[in-house]
Amino acid sequence: MSRREPVSLWPGEGDLGLMTDLYQLTMMVGYLKSGMAERRAEFEIFVRRLPRDRAYLVFSGLEQALADVLSMRLSADRIEWLRGLPAFSRLDPAILGQLADFRFEGAIWAVPEGTVVFPGETLVRVSAPLPQAQWVETYLLAALGYPTLVASKAARMAVAAAGRPLYEFGARRGHGPQAGLLAARSAFLAGFAGTSLVEAGRRLGIPLVGTMGHSWVQAFDREDQAFAAYADIYPGRATLLVDTYDVLEGVRKAAAIEPAIAAIRIDSGELDLQSRAARDLLDRHDRAGVKILCSGDLDETKIARLVAAGAPIDGFGVGVELVTSRDAPALSMVYKLVELEGQGKFKLSPGKRTYPMAKQVYRRRDHDGKFAGDLVARLDEKAEGEPLLELVVQGGRPVREPPSLALVRERCRDQLEALPDHLLALDARCDYPVVYSDQLEADARRLMEG
Amino acid sequence: MSRREPVSLWPGEGDLGLMTDLYQLTMMVGYLKSGMAERRAEFEIFVRRLPRDRAYLVFSGLEQALADVLSMRLSADRIEWLRGLPAFSRLDPAILGQLADFRFEGAIWAVPEGTVVFPGETLVRVSAPLPQAQWVETYLLAALGYPTLVASKAARMAVAAAGRPLYEFGARRGHGPQAGLLAARSAFLAGFAGTSLVEAGRRLGIPLVGTMGHSWVQAFDREDQAFAAYADIYPGRATLLVDTYDVLEGVRKAAAIEPAIAAIRIDSGELDLQSRAARDLLDRHDRAGVKILCSGDLDETKIARLVAAGAPIDGFGVGVELVTSRDAPALSMVYKLVELEGQGKFKLSPGKRTYPMAKQVYRRRDHDGKFAGDLVARLDEKAEGEPLLELVVQGGRPVREPPSLALVRERCRDQLEALPDHLLALDARCDYPVVYSDQLEADARRLMEG
Repeated sequence: MSRREPVSLWPGEGDLGLMTDLYQLTMMVGYLKSGMAERRAEFEIFVRRLPRDRAYLVFSGLEQALADVLSMRLSADRIEWLRGLPAFSRLDPAILGQLADFRFEGAIWAVPEGTVVFPGETLVRVSAPLPQAQWVETYLLAALGYPTLVASKAARMAVAAAGRPLYEFGARRGHGPQAGLLAARSAFLAGFAGTSLVEAGRRLGIPLVGTMGHSWVQAFDREDQAFAAYADIYPGRATLLVDTYDVLEGVRKAAAIEPAIAAIRIDSGELDLQSRAARDLLDRHDRAGVKILCSGDLDETKIARLVAAGAPIDGFGVGVELVTSRDAPALSMVYKLVELEGQGKFKLSPGKRTYPMAKQVYRRRDHDGKFAGDLVARLDEKAEGEPLLELVVQGGRPVREPPSLALVRERCRDQLEALPDHLLALDARCDYPVVYSDQLEADARRLMEG
Repeated sequence: MSRREPVSLWPGEGDLGLMTDLYQLTMMVGYLKSGMAERRAEFEIFVRRLPRDRAYLVFSGLEQALADVLSMRLSADRIEWLRGLPAFSRLDPAILGQLADFRFEGAIWAVPEGTVVFPGETLVRVSAPLPQAQWVETYLLAALGYPTLVASKAARMAVAAAGRPLYEFGARRGHGPQAGLLAARSAFLAGFAGTSLVEAGRRLGIPLVGTMGHSWVQAFDREDQAFAAYADIYPGRATLLVDTYDVLEGVRKAAAIEPAIAAIRIDSGELDLQSRAARDLLDRHDRAGVKILCSGDLDETKIARLVAAGAPIDGFGVGVELVTSRDAPALSMVYKLVELEGQGKFKLSPGKRTYPMAKQVYRRRDHDGKFAGDLVARLDEKAEGEPLLELVVQGGRPVREPPSLALVRERCRDQLEALPDHLLALDARCDYPVVYSDQLEADARRLMEG
């Protein structure tokens, strides 16, 4: 009906090639014009500083990032469109033509998803011709930073829940619809038991969980009718939301249902008091098997407090605090040139110093198998410990089958178990030793004095 | 090469139908089973509370949300997949079949994008058969909350910048790649001058801006060579990044270039001091026309301080603080059933009370044309003032051509100009009067006592 149709902000196929900053394109053109297009660059991704209230990070987002970066293209019509930009208007038109069908053909080394990592450690190394490596910077950072934030927050919540299941309910609160998908995956990876986001279940095989909304209760004239109808449709499986009007009244009605429902959910108020009162009521109505699920702006601190108080809560639904990583919504993850044609590169910007040369990270364990410290060394150095970075892409193609999400989840569990215990405390300060090799320190000194 | 291909987390066409919470689907099935599928529901979206340090919100995200919601479908293969879920396994298979080719066929009323809004006001009203209205809840909230957060933050930054241009550089820091697109649009809408995200320029027509990255400078043996090469490729247009090694050294080299470059960018350190020293150097080198752009974790407070100090900065690049709405990354935006078949609906959950009945919001102005207060009234009441909600979708189709982004931007500017001046202060507390009509208060009382 309209000349100007509404625009969805989901990129279609072929749109990812321009999901980059303009300066990446102007630099790429610059490298072409300057005869530097074939120079072999090593860029590294690392995190500068831990966010406040984090003692470690859980690396996440890699498989999606790789899939997308390897599908990035600059099609002919995109090149044509670029020609019309003021930035390129005075350029020899042939030069942009050299970017037609541009794709990433380099190598990527990365720490596996689910790995516990620390600031200053190389997490991903991109080894490619300079313009290709430049092009993918924006996308890689956008695709890795957020999942890592969510997985890191989810791991804290899993620690706080001390074995009680956590469910991710946050799709509606994510920073745009895609964030919900990314968050569901990262939460599951870091120990959550399931998600409410159906597409995340379909696409990633994450167990789906659901209760009912207040609207279901409101849609009936009486709360008991609403409960009975739902329980009748999902016999033995229903989780009834009891706080639309009066919580204990709701619990009483839920307890009366035959056969017994699966669970109740309390979404507001004093969860400690209410869960105890609800447990008491349920038990007195011969409903010891009916579980109690709680939700409502829960974060790891509140969860830990409820667990420590012994609140009879069988599971936690978590939304906004997780999917926005509310207390730490940003990660200082950067992508820096460290080597060009074998020559070390660095920068000195205040507070933003970088170490030159392609690197590997080696993790050492103590005799109990706990992580004892990491060494960041030059790729060409020999070092003790488990090398964390592995080759995942070569010649622009994946070199290995991506691990299943279940496997990544197991890895994350193992990693958290191997972390020194004191780092798992919610108020821990990070004292985990990450050191640079003597060689790297010498390289850095030499370049700075250079 | 691999059996298990890497999975991109961009939904393809046809995937939006399951971008919803599982409980929406179990409730939809429940409505079908309970003979309630044709009941006319009115759901309303509003914000419960202002985030800390916000005195108003700028509504954004509507056009994308509408485009996506109207394209949501449940295809036959998705229905088939749903049949296999534990939640639906004991269900009469025919019932899920009734959801085949399900689409939204209702009406939507909404406040135009760019409108300044306040908590408690209806921003969107969805009027549809109960299951349809339930289905779109998750997506609508996910699509509207984040853009509104960013536009609201961007408006504060625009006030702080006091007319100096702001550029959105945050794609790499968004919560997933899509967030960058949404943020670029919301920032422009709220007064930013441009974005660095190329796809946002292509898709939305937002002016693109770019400078250079540190890697360009590092890729050359000497900073002056890097500067000269870039300036040569983009004569008169180049913005040179001067802080890779030593800022003032960098400025000196940038000033020496012939013909004069367009601008320099400083991305670290004390921006007030450095911009003054840079201005001084540039002027002494006959480079009064070369502009100074600053970036580096800038928020509205830092921008206001730099402007108040009279720092000679011609434009600000803003990233992480804007695209994560870092100080307030979450918005308590909710979607509540308020009316069913003409009957008022409400809930009493602690701290989450809602007002029944479909509503309209009326804005009054004082004799200077400034906003004087809003009245939330029943749709069937007469009231003074400008009605904010307008019909945008009827029978599942858009009823009007969506306004251009330029027009939305103009509306936003006009709205901010009409806001009482004291509310624009960065530390303002919201004292803007939003009242409910006597009729609504009476309805709410009657239902609560009922």
